[in-house]
Amino acid sequence: MGRAHANAYKRVPDFFDLECRPVLQAVCARDGANAELFARQWGFASIETDWRALVARSDIDAIDIASPNDTHAEIAIAAAEAGKTIFCEKPLARNLAEAEQMTAAVDRAGVRNMVWYNYRRVPAVTLAKQLIDEGRLGRIFHYRAKFLQDWTMAPDLPQGGQALWRLDANVAGSGVTGDLLAHCIDTAQWLIGPIDRLCGMIETFIKERLHQQTGKQEPVGIDDASAFLARFENGALATFEATRYARGHKAQYAFEINGENASLAWDLHDLHRLQFFDHKDDGKLRGWRSIHITDHDHPYMKHWWVPGLQIGYEHTFVHQIGDFFTALSRDELVSPSFRDALATEYVIDAVLKSARSGAWQDVLRRDQQGRETPG
Amino acid sequence: MGRAHANAYKRVPDFFDLECRPVLQAVCARDGANAELFARQWGFASIETDWRALVARSDIDAIDIASPNDTHAEIAIAAAEAGKTIFCEKPLARNLAEAEQMTAAVDRAGVRNMVWYNYRRVPAVTLAKQLIDEGRLGRIFHYRAKFLQDWTMAPDLPQGGQALWRLDANVAGSGVTGDLLAHCIDTAQWLIGPIDRLCGMIETFIKERLHQQTGKQEPVGIDDASAFLARFENGALATFEATRYARGHKAQYAFEINGENASLAWDLHDLHRLQFFDHKDDGKLRGWRSIHITDHDHPYMKHWWVPGLQIGYEHTFVHQIGDFFTALSRDELVSPSFRDALATEYVIDAVLKSARSGAWQDVLRRDQQGRETPG
Amino acid sequence: MGRAHANAYKRVPDFFDLECRPVLQAVCARDGANAELFARQWGFASIETDWRALVARSDIDAIDIASPNDTHAEIAIAAAEAGKTIFCEKPLARNLAEAEQMTAAVDRAGVRNMVWYNYRRVPAVTLAKQLIDEGRLGRIFHYRAKFLQDWTMAPDLPQGGQALWRLDANVAGSGVTGDLLAHCIDTAQWLIGPIDRLCGMIETFIKERLHQQTGKQEPVGIDDASAFLARFENGALATFEATRYARGHKAQYAFEINGENASLAWDLHDLHRLQFFDHKDDGKLRGWRSIHITDHDHPYMKHWWVPGLQIGYEHTFVHQIGDFFTALSRDELVSPSFRDALATEYVIDAVLKSARSGAWQDVLRRDQQGRETPG
Amino acid sequence: MGRAHANAYKRVPDFFDLECRPVLQAVCARDGANAELFARQWGFASIETDWRALVARSDIDAIDIASPNDTHAEIAIAAAEAGKTIFCEKPLARNLAEAEQMTAAVDRAGVRNMVWYNYRRVPAVTLAKQLIDEGRLGRIFHYRAKFLQDWTMAPDLPQGGQALWRLDANVAGSGVTGDLLAHCIDTAQWLIGPIDRLCGMIETFIKERLHQQTGKQEPVGIDDASAFLARFENGALATFEATRYARGHKAQYAFEINGENASLAWDLHDLHRLQFFDHKDDGKLRGWRSIHITDHDHPYMKHWWVPGLQIGYEHTFVHQIGDFFTALSRDELVSPSFRDALATEYVIDAVLKSARSGAWQDVLRRDQQGRETPG
Repeated sequence: MGRAHANAYKRVPDFFDLECRPVLQAVCARDGANAELFARQWGFASIETDWRALVARSDIDAIDIASPNDTHAEIAIAAAEAGKTIFCEKPLARNLAEAEQMTAAVDRAGVRNMVWYNYRRVPAVTLAKQLIDEGRLGRIFHYRAKFLQDWTMAPDLPQGGQALWRLDANVAGSGVTGDLLAHCIDTAQWLIGPIDRLCGMIETFIKERLHQQTGKQEPVGIDDASAFLARFENGALATFEATRYARGHKAQYAFEINGENASLAWDLHDLHRLQFFDHKDDGKLRGWRSIHITDHDHPYMKHWWVPGLQIGYEHTFVHQIGDFFTALSRDELVSPSFRDALATEYVIDAVLKSARSGAWQDVLRRDQQGRETPG
Repeated sequence: MGRAHANAYKRVPDFFDLECRPVLQAVCARDGANAELFARQWGFASIETDWRALVARSDIDAIDIASPNDTHAEIAIAAAEAGKTIFCEKPLARNLAEAEQMTAAVDRAGVRNMVWYNYRRVPAVTLAKQLIDEGRLGRIFHYRAKFLQDWTMAPDLPQGGQALWRLDANVAGSGVTGDLLAHCIDTAQWLIGPIDRLCGMIETFIKERLHQQTGKQEPVGIDDASAFLARFENGALATFEATRYARGHKAQYAFEINGENASLAWDLHDLHRLQFFDHKDDGKLRGWRSIHITDHDHPYMKHWWVPGLQIGYEHTFVHQIGDFFTALSRDELVSPSFRDALATEYVIDAVLKSARSGAWQDVLRRDQQGRETPG
Repeated sequence: MGRAHANAYKRVPDFFDLECRPVLQAVCARDGANAELFARQWGFASIETDWRALVARSDIDAIDIASPNDTHAEIAIAAAEAGKTIFCEKPLARNLAEAEQMTAAVDRAGVRNMVWYNYRRVPAVTLAKQLIDEGRLGRIFHYRAKFLQDWTMAPDLPQGGQALWRLDANVAGSGVTGDLLAHCIDTAQWLIGPIDRLCGMIETFIKERLHQQTGKQEPVGIDDASAFLARFENGALATFEATRYARGHKAQYAFEINGENASLAWDLHDLHRLQFFDHKDDGKLRGWRSIHITDHDHPYMKHWWVPGLQIGYEHTFVHQIGDFFTALSRDELVSPSFRDALATEYVIDAVLKSARSGAWQDVLRRDQQGRETPG
Repeated sequence: MGRAHANAYKRVPDFFDLECRPVLQAVCARDGANAELFARQWGFASIETDWRALVARSDIDAIDIASPNDTHAEIAIAAAEAGKTIFCEKPLARNLAEAEQMTAAVDRAGVRNMVWYNYRRVPAVTLAKQLIDEGRLGRIFHYRAKFLQDWTMAPDLPQGGQALWRLDANVAGSGVTGDLLAHCIDTAQWLIGPIDRLCGMIETFIKERLHQQTGKQEPVGIDDASAFLARFENGALATFEATRYARGHKAQYAFEINGENASLAWDLHDLHRLQFFDHKDDGKLRGWRSIHITDHDHPYMKHWWVPGLQIGYEHTFVHQIGDFFTALSRDELVSPSFRDALATEYVIDAVLKSARSGAWQDVLRRDQQGRETPG
């Protein structure tokens, strides 16, 4: 993820009119040689090998956390205490307890904060948000989301270490629930509001894998697949599913929303298209429209190329940092903040609890005063 | 459904080489004028207005039940006792108790019996079955199915009466669970084996509708939407969903199956295509194949037209009755039988129970001796 | 084609409300055993082995010509002289001279006549015609059509004989120009008016094939591929192409029309869909709509099943004969008539002339008085 | 185009391992304020307002020509004489005479040169090239290409001036033939070899437009639409078409190639996918594969993100400049060179000649010694 973030900082001044520009002051990695290499490739001015040193530097305004999940809480809390702006990779943390502490820390410190739920800034997804907010869908009946991958199906794939920390529960916290479903949940609650109740199911298909750090077969603690039924506060019903065992899909994050007047659907594998069905169209001409989201009246697209020419994955990060700087100039906040990401953690926590208990679970949240509130 | 069945009987001798031909001896409807009209249009030799009279006729070998769900049990049981072959529209019955009685009746009487789960005979679906049986998918990890419609979304649509009995719980038994999910369940268990456990959710979005028989607003007893999580005996995880509130979909029955080596997907809206992903393909050339199921080496297609020319919905019924007659000539049985359809009823029953209890539910079945067995 | 026609006669009274019903009085084939077999399978009352005997029978009102192209002219002219209604398979004839004689014969005799350009009656294509006639496209700038197959690519496929007469120039007249492009031309001129001028190119990829009748390698006289540029009377530009050497396509007949206000596209491989783009849609929501042509307000679809359930290839023949009988009841004429099909022959003739001369060619037509008129 | 090129120079060192890095030394524009603005936004070290000054500077190694077509020849010839490396936007020139002079100039000067036919570097298109070169298609029978846009359909769109020079024949040379068909021709000849003969047709639908420089209605000299039939040296037949009057298409550049053993197709609107049909697949499982070109074994993709995440339009420029620098390190040449682009100009010239003459035209080329050779 470090490359995607670094790229965003470098691209944003070329394509957005901003009052200030990010400066790549330092990159930090435990392994100095790696840090050197990355700094040279990407043009960072300096390196650090201890994040504490980075946080302590007075020439650093903002810390971007792109390291594995088990480091998020400690770094974010220290950075908040040091008064830094914080950009944190998703999921916010390994678990709810860490996420709540981190959110409390940024609130306490009053620092700007943002979490990289980048798919909100796919132009097609942002357009979906606009259409819903304009009331074009009317009452919403159904939401269905899935995030399908197939990269961990080989039984001889090990777990742990730098490349495969996502398979190590100690580092990742959870498997697809925190990694993939987290995106689905973030988008869903952003688009149509809070999830109230849910019932989850998780599975680990391959029970043991060689651990790269211990050199031994170790139980796999993460979930390979996760699904849940849900009811939103607005009355909509939902199905959510994520897996790394769906042969034929590399990163198929897709959702569909059915409303009273219209429906829409999107798929990350063709991220520059939005599918839209408008029941108000002339009866005999109703059909799903495949909207090629490359026109200048589509969100973010005036920053890029002429109509018809598509953008890709990395642009979502550019959009997010572009929005951050625009908000900064206006002294406004940008979402998703730590608190927004915490709302996703409450749902993740409920999914895992429900999967263990075998029962429906209310999504309980705590407000800033620590009082439990339903989803 | 009467038209689809009648059409199948008339078409089958034109396109299949059969040793015998169905004769349209009589059509039965409560309203004599309707029966007359239908008989004239379709070429039935006589009419009846009381199904008991039909069952009593000695010139009738087979009874086809295409009437509303609340009539299935009584007619089927009487027809079985009269020694008739029985073809019954799905779902088998309004509820599990009726379905068990009907199955016991045909077993007792030893009569041939078949249920119109016609989508098994879509050539693409039959090919899916072949591919799975040939082991091309390997171990199966995921099954996801949905059946989406939008025809009952208008709040002023009444319930009950001849046209809208599907919205009347007394007649239909359940809503989309028995009507639409039943198809999904039948196909799924046929393709990859029994469902063991599940957790369901149902909803009725519009709580009251004018009843066409009472002339009053009456509570709506059927489910408008239904979804469940499931675990199959073979270890696969599944999501199932059906609704009549999915704007933009008339009859989108779609499923996808992810196996170790391959995945496949199908959609009733383009029923003549099967999507297939084979992980054994050359790495850089792997992709979902859109197979146009119109070649003579595809199931059933040698009976129809030259390659490239598609067939439609009604052909599935022709295939089923064609298979019945072929089996009859060989003194073999054809599926789905009442007992196969009963397997779907056990799942439907578990979905409705789970939706009420809010807990996971084992799919309990009874064998021919009446002993409970897990799914 | 005999099966598709016979099926249409048998299906039409079941699905259309007609004042009269076709009676399958006799089937004619040179080989009496084949005729017997076909009559038994399809329920014809009698057989003939000489078409002259058929034409001479007084109990026959209508003759349907489904035999190879080299028989069309002789049979049609005799049938016209005998006062029969004539339904002729397309293309009308092997060449323009025959086609003109046939048209003159039916005109002279004043008999009803119709040619089986069945694709006009695909509901999606009929809807396209309605949209154009309603002016929804506005001025038309572009038409592009192609008909792609791959069934003759094997060099060891012989020519001639009952199954492969389409590869024998003496029987077929031309190759893909008369067989496949003929459909494209018929649809195009029906939808947007006459073609004025064109420039063609044809090719025979495999120059010799074993002839099944002579038992020797013989030069292949038909065109394997054919394409032309065209200008319509209305100012539109066009490209047309047909081939039997397009690997991966069984019968991909597709066209797209670009107008000032809207565009539309259709593909026989998914014949139940029409693609439609309306520039009048709200700017940010413009997209190609994939219209699932299965609703009761779509052409012909109220005769079939509930919305969402697709029909196939053979239904186009049922529609055509249904329209014929409806027109008959009202003493109206139905198209495409021999004269309509002759308009296609003028274009075919121009394509072949242009391909030989290497120059643009005016499409010259003769009116009923035999005077040449530009396309 | 300046932005796309500038972006490529800035991105390439981040994503490619190169021995040297481009330095944005100076940007040149007639309007100094624009040049300033662009330099500041993109980080150029200096500006020029006269390209002659730029060419004269000794701190400049390479000149990138992204200005309108009427400036290409003069700048390129001067830059060649000054010994600069030249990167030129396509089409190479307004007409064949200019293109020949430019090519002669770079040949004479022995300077490195390259033309921005960027679509060769779409990973899906590069993969198509690999598949053809590996012989997977076998003998090629058909090529069809189209480039459809709709941005000039409004009659009140003026011509000329900075934004609309593409509609001014004096500046652009030709309309869609040089602008859009040029891409189609470049790709086609690169993929399957030279075009031998062709027959073209062009049209200007709107005959007069307000000229922004004269302030008067002036005849429109460019072609709005252009199409041609072609025969390749390898025996393949082709249709080519480009237009700016295809409502519903912003930049639909699409091609399909049909070979003996396999076919492939691509569409710029979904540039990250390649459609592939392999006749060698198991008969009943043959189908068009939609290959999501995002895996690390796909061309260029190891430079970007994890599998499943798509790239867009601008990446093609990064790939081209990346290839240039890689070739430079190895002292190799990179294509398309001026000479490669000249091959496209010979075809463009033949299309325009044929459209005027109404006859087929040989594609005549001159070799380095100025001798005419057939295509």
